[in-house]
Amino acid sequence: MNSSEFRRRGKEMVDFVADYLEGIEGRQVYPDVEPGYLRPLIPTTAPEEPDTFEDILNDVEKIIMPGAASPACTELETVMMDWLGKMLKLPEAFLAGQVGEGGGVIQGSASEATLVALLAARTKVVRRLQAASPGLTQGAIMEKLVAYSSDQAHSSVERAGLIGGVKIKAIPSDGKFAMRASALQEALERDKAEGLIPFFVVATLGTTSCCSFDNLLEVGPICTKEDVWLHIDAAYAGSSFICPEFRHLLNGVEFADSFNFNPHKWLLVNFDCSAMWVKKRTDLIGAFKLDPLYLKHGHQDSGLITDYRHWQLPLGRRFRSLKMWFVFRMYGVKGLQAYIRKHVRLAHEFEHLVHQDPRFEICAEVTLGLVCFRLKGSNKLNEDLLERINSAKKIHLVPCHLRDKFVLRLAICARTVESAHVRQAWEHIQQLATDVLRAEKD
Amino acid sequence: MNSSEFRRRGKEMVDFVADYLEGIEGRQVYPDVEPGYLRPLIPTTAPEEPDTFEDILNDVEKIIMPGAASPACTELETVMMDWLGKMLKLPEAFLAGQVGEGGGVIQGSASEATLVALLAARTKVVRRLQAASPGLTQGAIMEKLVAYSSDQAHSSVERAGLIGGVKIKAIPSDGKFAMRASALQEALERDKAEGLIPFFVVATLGTTSCCSFDNLLEVGPICTKEDVWLHIDAAYAGSSFICPEFRHLLNGVEFADSFNFNPHKWLLVNFDCSAMWVKKRTDLIGAFKLDPLYLKHGHQDSGLITDYRHWQLPLGRRFRSLKMWFVFRMYGVKGLQAYIRKHVRLAHEFEHLVHQDPRFEICAEVTLGLVCFRLKGSNKLNEDLLERINSAKKIHLVPCHLRDKFVLRLAICARTVESAHVRQAWEHIQQLATDVLRAEKD
Repeated sequence: MNSSEFRRRGKEMVDFVADYLEGIEGRQVYPDVEPGYLRPLIPTTAPEEPDTFEDILNDVEKIIMPGAASPACTELETVMMDWLGKMLKLPEAFLAGQVGEGGGVIQGSASEATLVALLAARTKVVRRLQAASPGLTQGAIMEKLVAYSSDQAHSSVERAGLIGGVKIKAIPSDGKFAMRASALQEALERDKAEGLIPFFVVATLGTTSCCSFDNLLEVGPICTKEDVWLHIDAAYAGSSFICPEFRHLLNGVEFADSFNFNPHKWLLVNFDCSAMWVKKRTDLIGAFKLDPLYLKHGHQDSGLITDYRHWQLPLGRRFRSLKMWFVFRMYGVKGLQAYIRKHVRLAHEFEHLVHQDPRFEICAEVTLGLVCFRLKGSNKLNEDLLERINSAKKIHLVPCHLRDKFVLRLAICARTVESAHVRQAWEHIQQLATDVLRAEKD
Repeated sequence: MNSSEFRRRGKEMVDFVADYLEGIEGRQVYPDVEPGYLRPLIPTTAPEEPDTFEDILNDVEKIIMPGAASPACTELETVMMDWLGKMLKLPEAFLAGQVGEGGGVIQGSASEATLVALLAARTKVVRRLQAASPGLTQGAIMEKLVAYSSDQAHSSVERAGLIGGVKIKAIPSDGKFAMRASALQEALERDKAEGLIPFFVVATLGTTSCCSFDNLLEVGPICTKEDVWLHIDAAYAGSSFICPEFRHLLNGVEFADSFNFNPHKWLLVNFDCSAMWVKKRTDLIGAFKLDPLYLKHGHQDSGLITDYRHWQLPLGRRFRSLKMWFVFRMYGVKGLQAYIRKHVRLAHEFEHLVHQDPRFEICAEVTLGLVCFRLKGSNKLNEDLLERINSAKKIHLVPCHLRDKFVLRLAICARTVESAHVRQAWEHIQQLATDVLRAEKD
């Protein structure tokens, strides 16, 4: 939507809200619809081509308003998470559908999703072990629980362990900054030999530092064999999986118990909107709902009567699925794919420019929209370059350490970024690099 | 703001956003301001009288835009939480100011705030006990930890215990549904005698069922004496404390370690906005930041460089303090007080109407905007009445149980509610009550 259409549509929305408030006394205080009313009114998949804004606004009046806040808020979320799951070609087991045992929920952030998954896994293993030996206290079990992630995983994983009251261990990643089978298996064996209880593994697809990918096809089967909960954190990279050419990066998701990524990062949905799916919703609910009896009737929590407050940390909920509905329809799947592809193309354009300057090196494989690069030479040199770049305030780069190397990161992430911006950024960086190198000589 | 001004201002905001997006290439990617830039630009307290929308929008351009997302987002939140804390006459210790050790943070919901407080208390007691006897494991300690709340407390307290992996015990409330010293002291003694470790008490001001108030002046000193973390959940009632005539309900807050209420419930700030204050921010940070060294330098985390991601469960944050800034200035403290007083007045008007009909009884003291009432007689009778009320869909009531009584709850909470609505609701209820009583006779 260009700026002039935004002005027009935005003002229509203001009138829409004002009309609603002026006419509110004429509306019923409680909806007439029955649970499950919404799904039949909405297509089962996101449109390939964009819908018009009129169509969407008409549907708001026709489909959402009669369902008020509830059940519309819950039911649109379930259907939108199914739409998005299908866009990613997630295995059927993760979708709610009409009768599925899995399903999706919108969390606020990937860190929240990781914590929720860890708590669900913790509850599941504690209940399993207590069922086997009733004498065992939760505290005695929790002392022995260990969760794992790669040494490249986001700090929020360690944080989830801290909050959940369990140990977190970092698995050394390989030369491509990926978690591999051997290192994980080794850690599991060592910990089991010490009487500890591995229960949770976080695999990262698209690490924060360099967008590396843990080896799901190796890690997944180990988690299955060891009966350990596998959670996948694809916070940034997940959006790219809607493109067939990137979907292979998600291969192995079938081994996971839960999967999460942030449409607010790279799918044009405004912050916050973190999409999380589980294969067994009863595992999630079990962590937050103190009612073992309930768990014995998990199917009662069908797509029809999902109670999302048991899927998350807070009880209150916002109507965030509206953002997804609007964006998916305004762009269509093709429009969203084109957006992802453009960013990846621009990242490769920048990578190509870096390759052409012998003073620089690329520090990690460029798969999506992130380029890790540095001046050949000392960390000091690159710290000086970053300092000059960020004080010039024409562009802003966030660095990282890859092993012992101080690395600069160029991330393509603005909605309106074009090739011209990338070239400007590179010329700017080259100029400052020349200054830094000259200053070093003096 | 009436509907026609809303239309005008809303459309101005749309243009404001569009102008920003059109001119974004002309803006610097990184702000020039230094941490702490914002506080001196903003008054130290909320205005008594309303400001104009122009003034506010001009300040957005002048004060917020130069600070971009960061540090403006953090600094406005700290200042707004100080404004609100002063509106409530919170003890100085809860305010951040320039050098305070306390301060406020916006959480998503009261349940999140309760969990955050419980986790902070858990970390604090574990570290204290481990410092005393280094051999003690976290698991061994957590097994013995007990948290307490009244039997009238919101279910989210029990949920926080479940997530935090600690025991939660319900303290029997008194005849006025309040937690009193005797019952709490008794539970503490019994549990300590059994070798358990009391560490956390949640006192509720304005319970969900009947808006009863735990006795802070009794409970507070016990928590201090026993070195137990006291968290106050005033989710609904908290907004009323901005009125001098209701502030006494908060007496005893000086004994608390943390205090929370939801401006999104009754202070005209849109969902979500849950305001939480702590006396020692380092206690909060300690629960989420795995860096004991850091805790030794708590004062480093001054009002100047608050890092809110360590104050909450998710890492990502929204700019929610803008909502507070706009609302506090559009209404002024006097406008917000008038809003609260009007709702309380209307609740008493309804209470008075109920008193005049001998078929009904009032079931709990009406202090704020909630009236608990029922038909004299069986629960069945009142269940039938509620069924008729909610199927008629002219008004919607959510019931509760007070001891063994099934009770109807009329809550005054709409922004536009008037005396006429209250009288209509009552006549409607009376009519349906007549039908129920007639049907019972037949």
